[in-house]
Amino acid sequence: MELADIARRLELQDLYTGYAACLDSDALERWPDFFTEDCAYRVTSAENYAAGLPLGLIYATSRNMLKDRVSALREANIYEPQRYRHLISGISLGSEAADGLDVAANFLVIRTMQDGAMSIFAAGRYVDRVVRVAAGWQFARKIVVLDSRRIDTLLAIPL
Amino acid sequence: MELADIARRLELQDLYTGYAACLDSDALERWPDFFTEDCAYRVTSAENYAAGLPLGLIYATSRNMLKDRVSALREANIYEPQRYRHLISGISLGSEAADGLDVAANFLVIRTMQDGAMSIFAAGRYVDRVVRVAAGWQFARKIVVLDSRRIDTLLAIPL
Amino acid sequence: MELADIARRLELQDLYTGYAACLDSDALERWPDFFTEDCAYRVTSAENYAAGLPLGLIYATSRNMLKDRVSALREANIYEPQRYRHLISGISLGSEAADGLDVAANFLVIRTMQDGAMSIFAAGRYVDRVVRVAAGWQFARKIVVLDSRRIDTLLAIPL
Repeated sequence: MELADIARRLELQDLYTGYAACLDSDALERWPDFFTEDCAYRVTSAENYAAGLPLGLIYATSRNMLKDRVSALREANIYEPQRYRHLISGISLGSEAADGLDVAANFLVIRTMQDGAMSIFAAGRYVDRVVRVAAGWQFARKIVVLDSRRIDTLLAIPL
Repeated sequence: MELADIARRLELQDLYTGYAACLDSDALERWPDFFTEDCAYRVTSAENYAAGLPLGLIYATSRNMLKDRVSALREANIYEPQRYRHLISGISLGSEAADGLDVAANFLVIRTMQDGAMSIFAAGRYVDRVVRVAAGWQFARKIVVLDSRRIDTLLAIPL
Repeated sequence: MELADIARRLELQDLYTGYAACLDSDALERWPDFFTEDCAYRVTSAENYAAGLPLGLIYATSRNMLKDRVSALREANIYEPQRYRHLISGISLGSEAADGLDVAANFLVIRTMQDGAMSIFAAGRYVDRVVRVAAGWQFARKIVVLDSRRIDTLLAIPL
């Protein structure tokens, strides 16, 4: 393992750390900046993902669609404010190609309601592709593969 | 800290990441490959571990016994398919000796049932010994120390 | 990224790993050693933290106060012994200054009761400042920002 490999691994850890911190601090307006302009973003169930079904609960094919989703979330009247906390572990890297690098990781999201009740909101696996840009790394593709089919994604923050 | 130390840490992170990915993707037939031929594998409770009791809920003293366990799990008619998601953090390394290196880590396993219900399946600590082999690293010993005595290990995947 | 930067990141990971291992193994007498003599330690809710309220559920302004807290916990007759398991992820580092380095991380604590029941005890964010000392790194400031306002901190271990 060379210094450049090690540096890349740590940079990619930082990408996921920054991504989680953005969502957990409700800085959703910054969320699309983690993606390339022509990114693919998808939230799907493990069942549908294993079956090769292309669509999902949420589907976007550009950064602009992600911005629209944030606007929609902001405009929606959310009855009960919630907090989310991401735990991400087991980041694994494929080999780097001209068009990017495959990365996967396990995630767990804990939701805390206004009254203090905490629950497991989501668990699953990120199946991502990242590309190197001037400012660091961005997601060219992010597939959020949920272990559970039962999720309230309508009002929830991005995952 | 020298480059070789850093590389070793990252290799061992990869070992745990690969281990978790193997179990979470239900690739149980590959699970014994993470162990040496004469490995010791044990699942025990924190209470019994602290008391120095040698046995546990599950006990194997070779890779072949692990293969047998996988066969038994596959043959068992599991009524309800489940998904497991491992979160592993806080990997800590002892010093490397001729016969291996002690490693410990915290783990949390979330179980998702067929109907979508998610729960904490297990939490605890891995108390392991790893050895360097041609292909990378293997577990010569893995003790899965569970925080809870109450666990359904009969039908569950390995931990 | 240079070798010294990488080494520092790994050292700080070790700090959090050791901190979690200390608490999870109930080695509370060693807990104050993770802090500087004139440290600030605070447990607060995300709500109060965002509002800039200076106090919290627990507040200490020296290592001696932390020692006193441990003594109080040991003297208290705890009806039901519990186990705690910390999962820490997403450690992010600010830039190093003469008076220390800002570090933040996400945490999740699972509590296991004597009867085996497991639950989410706490989730939130560490907002810390660390300083380099002869033996490694210590917390000059640790703010434990809890996602939930509802927490039993009276009898609980430190976070």
